[in-house]
Amino acid sequence: MKKIRFGFIGLGRRGVVLLNNFFLQRDDIEITALCDVYEDRMDDIEKILLESNRPKPFKSKDYREILKRDDVDAVIISTGWEAHIIIAVAAMEAHKVVGLEVGGAYTIKECWDLVEAYERTQTPFMFLENCCYNKDELLATAMARHGLFGEIVHASGSYTHDIRDQVSKGDEWRHYRMRNYLNRNAENYPTHELGPIAKVLDINRGNRMVSLVSVASKARGMERYIEDHKDTVNPKLLGKKFKQGDIVNTIITCANGETISLVLNTTLPSFAERNFTLRGTKGMYQQTGNLVVIDDKDNMGEEIHGTKGLNVLLNNAKQYEDEFLPDYWKNITPEEMAAGHGGMDVFMLREFVDAIKNKTEMPIDVYDAASWMAITVLSEVSISQSGMPVNIPDFTKGQWLLRPQKDVINLHK
Amino acid sequence: MKKIRFGFIGLGRRGVVLLNNFFLQRDDIEITALCDVYEDRMDDIEKILLESNRPKPFKSKDYREILKRDDVDAVIISTGWEAHIIIAVAAMEAHKVVGLEVGGAYTIKECWDLVEAYERTQTPFMFLENCCYNKDELLATAMARHGLFGEIVHASGSYTHDIRDQVSKGDEWRHYRMRNYLNRNAENYPTHELGPIAKVLDINRGNRMVSLVSVASKARGMERYIEDHKDTVNPKLLGKKFKQGDIVNTIITCANGETISLVLNTTLPSFAERNFTLRGTKGMYQQTGNLVVIDDKDNMGEEIHGTKGLNVLLNNAKQYEDEFLPDYWKNITPEEMAAGHGGMDVFMLREFVDAIKNKTEMPIDVYDAASWMAITVLSEVSISQSGMPVNIPDFTKGQWLLRPQKDVINLHK
Repeated sequence: MKKIRFGFIGLGRRGVVLLNNFFLQRDDIEITALCDVYEDRMDDIEKILLESNRPKPFKSKDYREILKRDDVDAVIISTGWEAHIIIAVAAMEAHKVVGLEVGGAYTIKECWDLVEAYERTQTPFMFLENCCYNKDELLATAMARHGLFGEIVHASGSYTHDIRDQVSKGDEWRHYRMRNYLNRNAENYPTHELGPIAKVLDINRGNRMVSLVSVASKARGMERYIEDHKDTVNPKLLGKKFKQGDIVNTIITCANGETISLVLNTTLPSFAERNFTLRGTKGMYQQTGNLVVIDDKDNMGEEIHGTKGLNVLLNNAKQYEDEFLPDYWKNITPEEMAAGHGGMDVFMLREFVDAIKNKTEMPIDVYDAASWMAITVLSEVSISQSGMPVNIPDFTKGQWLLRPQKDVINLHK
Repeated sequence: MKKIRFGFIGLGRRGVVLLNNFFLQRDDIEITALCDVYEDRMDDIEKILLESNRPKPFKSKDYREILKRDDVDAVIISTGWEAHIIIAVAAMEAHKVVGLEVGGAYTIKECWDLVEAYERTQTPFMFLENCCYNKDELLATAMARHGLFGEIVHASGSYTHDIRDQVSKGDEWRHYRMRNYLNRNAENYPTHELGPIAKVLDINRGNRMVSLVSVASKARGMERYIEDHKDTVNPKLLGKKFKQGDIVNTIITCANGETISLVLNTTLPSFAERNFTLRGTKGMYQQTGNLVVIDDKDNMGEEIHGTKGLNVLLNNAKQYEDEFLPDYWKNITPEEMAAGHGGMDVFMLREFVDAIKNKTEMPIDVYDAASWMAITVLSEVSISQSGMPVNIPDFTKGQWLLRPQKDVINLHK
């Protein structure tokens, strides 16, 4: 069996996580090339590879050197957000299979570049949105596919994750978030919640996202955080003004009349949640409570409050797992569970590698990537115009009318 | 002690609830006049009054007859939404103190009429938004006033209440919702969540609502409900198309940079929630879980899911009641608790009657009413234009810059 030879471009935290959780566990994969603008990051990974009795990789600070190599079949791009699409386009042009880490785009032009690079070269491309493979989202999507929620009319989710510490670490962590938070105001990280929603709503496959409005609150979380940590934080941050609003609300309207509500909430104290929620004419699913309401069946209509009521519904989605949960989630091993966001990274990458090997269609494709990443650009435009509605391009150029429904894995019985 | 003599205009369900829960319990109040377009409703209430050994009330189908009477000091207006402001304006012109039930407005002109009637006549006016007196909202608002959440940057809430049964009962219940749901598409009932949010954000008192965007999902809930109940539902509803979208998302931007997110969700299966939520630089409160996260104190940053995590936080707001809950909520009697939405109706009406007696400022005034009710009108405009941002009038004509902060009751220690 021929091994798939990967180049890794971008060796920050996420690159290392992907490597350890999946790539080093597989005998059918070789890491033949490493790329990062920081030498020490390459050296660290090289050391891990050699300690794992893997061959010595080629190393370069210039991704173009990686793309030139004959011993690279595919690349994983997990750089800072700003380089994602530039490198993905170049990789497809070089006929290297692309696995692209998530993030938002900066211009609509780039999103078209991505689509056109794929259409011109037909190089396999997958957008590595791991939440599409998470247990909750797949269970609820399977239930939706089997009609339990009736017709879905609305879906919502959020990226609620207190990452003030990470945002404050720019130079120290050589991280891209700080510069983005200082200088931009956008739904900067939409895909963890939007990806699974787009899948269940058949976006780019019988449906599409037509327009959005996006509104940001004032930006106070980072400034207060820096003020409260002035003895420990990088002194150059003291007194700095951040452009990124603490809460960004975005509402997307779809061609088939559904609405999607997204919330970005990353610079205020909170517990973390994505709260993937589906609301249909016959029922609903809400992730944070892992709860289901089915019409005429579950307690409904009554007000829910604290432990009075909410705990009755809490986790009642479990009762549907036997019937609807995909097998690989039913049979998850402790090793898979421990590896990468509770299993979803492993399942996603397995599907990616399987699609490369079997030359089958990628489960999350270039049209998904372009339309999901475009939300960041368009939210930035809408926010700058007090929430003006902005049209979302049809990156399929009308093919959404023809393209068949496709889930990231088979959810039909 | 002189009794306050009330006329009741609008004797549907809400009127009867207010009467039973509060007005009939007070010795310092007399009901001297009843008004409804349906004779039998007046007769039913008259019977209740006589059985309670109260004097026989004057009855008329024409509210103008009530407003002419010398034995009416004040009126409670709990008619269908369409008549609220027309009657409130006429009542103020007749120098009858007004207690106006909640609902949204139909035009901005009406909202100005309401303000101008008050300014011209100086007749005391209160908007009867009971949720401003609810336990959760007052506890969280008191905590906010004492700085526990830092600077509030975002607040959210919803009217999530499955009232498909009520909406389907138009003629049978002689109810106003059906005709509104058939013919309009708006955030038709914003005040239960917006009222307490507007109070904590000092709207019209140092802050104001500047603009909004509003987007509606397709309308499928009622049509599916009627299809599923075709043997029992009013036959004239079969096959009817509803204009009211099932989910309406509205985002309001305030002068001081805060955003407010409102959700209307009344025609899909769900448990009920308002989920009053405050998000600040140092902490947050969320009503449905009755949970608080205080920076550097509570478990945060970790993902919450079902019974793993959420139940750790669930109801942790209770620990703040000793210090911050207003006394009347601490000392609520079983009778008050049983009467009207778990106490809040009673507290609201007591404050209303006290303000009449003491000739003090109304806790929820005409500027609150106009600006909150205007959200319905403006959301209708915004929805009809795909979420176009719409300016919210300043009904205080600049006085919001001068008017001092005022809670519905004193929340400072």
